[in-house]
Amino acid sequence: MAKKAISIISGGMDSALSSFIAKNDGYEIVGVHFNYGQRTQNRELQAYRLLCNELGVINSYEIELNFFKQIGASSLVDKKMEVPTSGLEDGVPNTYVPFRNGIFLSIAAAIAEKEKAEAIYIGVVAKDSSGYPDCTSQFIKKQESAINEGTKQETQVKIKMPLVAMTKAQIVQSAIKMNVPLQFTWSCYQDEDVACGVCDSCRLRLRGFELAGCKDPIAYKKVPNSF
Amino acid sequence: MAKKAISIISGGMDSALSSFIAKNDGYEIVGVHFNYGQRTQNRELQAYRLLCNELGVINSYEIELNFFKQIGASSLVDKKMEVPTSGLEDGVPNTYVPFRNGIFLSIAAAIAEKEKAEAIYIGVVAKDSSGYPDCTSQFIKKQESAINEGTKQETQVKIKMPLVAMTKAQIVQSAIKMNVPLQFTWSCYQDEDVACGVCDSCRLRLRGFELAGCKDPIAYKKVPNSF
Repeated sequence: MAKKAISIISGGMDSALSSFIAKNDGYEIVGVHFNYGQRTQNRELQAYRLLCNELGVINSYEIELNFFKQIGASSLVDKKMEVPTSGLEDGVPNTYVPFRNGIFLSIAAAIAEKEKAEAIYIGVVAKDSSGYPDCTSQFIKKQESAINEGTKQETQVKIKMPLVAMTKAQIVQSAIKMNVPLQFTWSCYQDEDVACGVCDSCRLRLRGFELAGCKDPIAYKKVPNSF
Repeated sequence: MAKKAISIISGGMDSALSSFIAKNDGYEIVGVHFNYGQRTQNRELQAYRLLCNELGVINSYEIELNFFKQIGASSLVDKKMEVPTSGLEDGVPNTYVPFRNGIFLSIAAAIAEKEKAEAIYIGVVAKDSSGYPDCTSQFIKKQESAINEGTKQETQVKIKMPLVAMTKAQIVQSAIKMNVPLQFTWSCYQDEDVACGVCDSCRLRLRGFELAGCKDPIAYKKVPNSF
């Protein structure tokens, strides 16, 4: 029986590449996606399903989490707050969703225990990113340790974060080399029809393509002169 | 401004005592309760609300988690599995819900970050309990460390587990001494009208009362001769 990995797939470029790396590492993939009331929920779900199809996942969990809207405190889930569009700044931006990856990894751990999977893949990027505290290797390592302590003795899960030290340009280059269908991925934080081009996530993506010397296959409403 | 604590309150005896200890420690209490498709969901929610009222909570989060039924793998959420009623056995029983406390603590951490709370109280009991791996102090310590690593720098949360080393008899005695309204609490795993008396949770509770030399204020369908 092939070894199994849970892959957390938002539908963005990073989780797409991370999933294809998991597949390349010889794992059968169980996809996990979270609908948590984020602004682009429908488009991300569509991207997730297209990616699952390309990956040939053996199982898929689409998880509804309504409570993030109850907690709020992030412009991704609270429409009364504005998503920043004037360029990346220092510090934790208001798009940060409190302990999102901690919650996602805990749920992925429960699924890993049920599915008897030996790894969880997550596409966190530490440096060339929005500066979220739940995207660092220090955090992931501690969460892995908590998961292995708090589940059954026979449940031993490795959390793999193949992109953590990569730049966005390297992510674009690797994704193209591995034939990741980037045309299906969705990164924009605020719009679901055409990517805005000016939110932090669009800017990071566009800068990655520019530095990689490649053209992004998706369309943008507006492409800023500088990212 | 008084200091704030998040208290995870299932509505059982342990989380009730843990919450009253938090209050006694000088915290204003933010209650958090999870409806996760457990068999006695309605009755537990009722117990939670009654306890919140007694505690004078300053805020309350009733969190819906539908995905536990999707994951299954536990008789508490999968009605096709049977809740054991013939007495406590060694090993992890089928009432174990995969990484439940990891998930609950991660969500509590997000709420703590939003509410600027400095502590999370959880009523885990390590020894005199069902033997769940997510109820030990080793696990809680590692999860605390992951939470403080994966949230904003200014978010520093202590996870308090005042019951972890207590026996059920000590829990009953402390609860009575602190005037915890045990008549409002609900422990039974399988029934919502009258407690069954024979599931592991009822047996642990009944044994606690017997060893404490006190009478449980709630009614039981059946009280076994031995626990």
